Amino acid sequence: MVPIISIVGLSGSGKTTLLEKVVKELTLRGWSVGTIKHDVHGFDIDREGKDSYRHKKAGAVTVALSSPGRFAVIKEVKKEWPPERIIASYLSDVDVVVIEGFKQSGFPKIEVIRKANSKKPVCAGDKKLIAFASDFNPAGPAGKVPVYGIDDFRGISDLIEEKIIKKHQQKTVSLLVDGKEVALKPFIENLLREGVMGMIKSLKGCERPEEIEIRIRKK
Amino acid sequence: MVPIISIVGLSGSGKTTLLEKVVKELTLRGWSVGTIKHDVHGFDIDREGKDSYRHKKAGAVTVALSSPGRFAVIKEVKKEWPPERIIASYLSDVDVVVIEGFKQSGFPKIEVIRKANSKKPVCAGDKKLIAFASDFNPAGPAGKVPVYGIDDFRGISDLIEEKIIKKHQQKTVSLLVDGKEVALKPFIENLLREGVMGMIKSLKGCERPEEIEIRIRKK
Repeated sequence: MVPIISIVGLSGSGKTTLLEKVVKELTLRGWSVGTIKHDVHGFDIDREGKDSYRHKKAGAVTVALSSPGRFAVIKEVKKEWPPERIIASYLSDVDVVVIEGFKQSGFPKIEVIRKANSKKPVCAGDKKLIAFASDFNPAGPAGKVPVYGIDDFRGISDLIEEKIIKKHQQKTVSLLVDGKEVALKPFIENLLREGVMGMIKSLKGCERPEEIEIRIRKK
Repeated sequence: MVPIISIVGLSGSGKTTLLEKVVKELTLRGWSVGTIKHDVHGFDIDREGKDSYRHKKAGAVTVALSSPGRFAVIKEVKKEWPPERIIASYLSDVDVVVIEGFKQSGFPKIEVIRKANSKKPVCAGDKKLIAFASDFNPAGPAGKVPVYGIDDFRGISDLIEEKIIKKHQQKTVSLLVDGKEVALKPFIENLLREGVMGMIKSLKGCERPEEIEIRIRKK
């Protein structure tokens, strides 16, 4: 699974502004970054009359739009997919995913809090909170969570690199069974990697694979 | 790889109309359908000022938007991805993909041609052309490609089921090496399926997997 950091905070705290700066900084440092924005109100991508709208209205469960510089995939779901599922299926090729707006998730979090907006942190006590970004000290004098300046995107990027990205760099095997990620012990990870690599390497054109993906359905 | 059928024809021939009817019919018959629309002019999904636009402008290579009933993934690419790559990475969970507007591709094709619009087929001689949908006989008296009525979405859906979907149903293993699909002989397909299934089944919670996905990066 790709490492994930969640930027949380009340509306108006400056989440998107911090996210922008952090994404820019991490990209400049050479990481490839994905983002997820949670929007309870939905979004309007394909308007009535557009071909993609017509495809979807006809019943297509997944509609892709492709153009020279970009493409988009729009998927209808009966129940909202949790971000980890979207990431496992659609953002597995980036170094880190920065998400915005999933307060209840179990991901490592940075809370943005601005005193003009609110003085009460929403994630105080959350064990996954790794830092505040704030213009005051929301943790209080006895707080154990580090407080970064609300504009200190460089310090926050250092933290994300150290605590989130680099810790995940060692992992080289991920396994999804029926859409859910399965945690692998080092022995099993090794067995799978060496076993599968061994089977693949004898195939023509697969002598030096950098990355392998296998999908198997039950017969 | 998911089976693919391409609906081709000149602008104004009625491609999208036929695609809509076929997608609807196949969906009613119980297949899950994905579509790809090719748009050389690009498309505008996230407008200036929107958060997703800000995420992307900051440098995120992949931006996802999630809401209760749907999500979208927008990816910036240096060079246009061919449809097979988009399908392998993002539409691998559907039964069939109907694409529109990739005339040059090597996929099986159905050409839509309407006499008021044009009398000269664009795919005559294309070995991958499996049918015409037309209001005249564009194949000529000696034509070998079957001609369906331009509105005969049921007949065309029968053809797609028989020639495209059902032929692919037997395949249960797909292998991607460095993003490219590798053709597998039955012996290797079997070896991979049984080998990997065997390794997985001993893991807790993976006793009866329906679908497995493994990604391995070189150490």
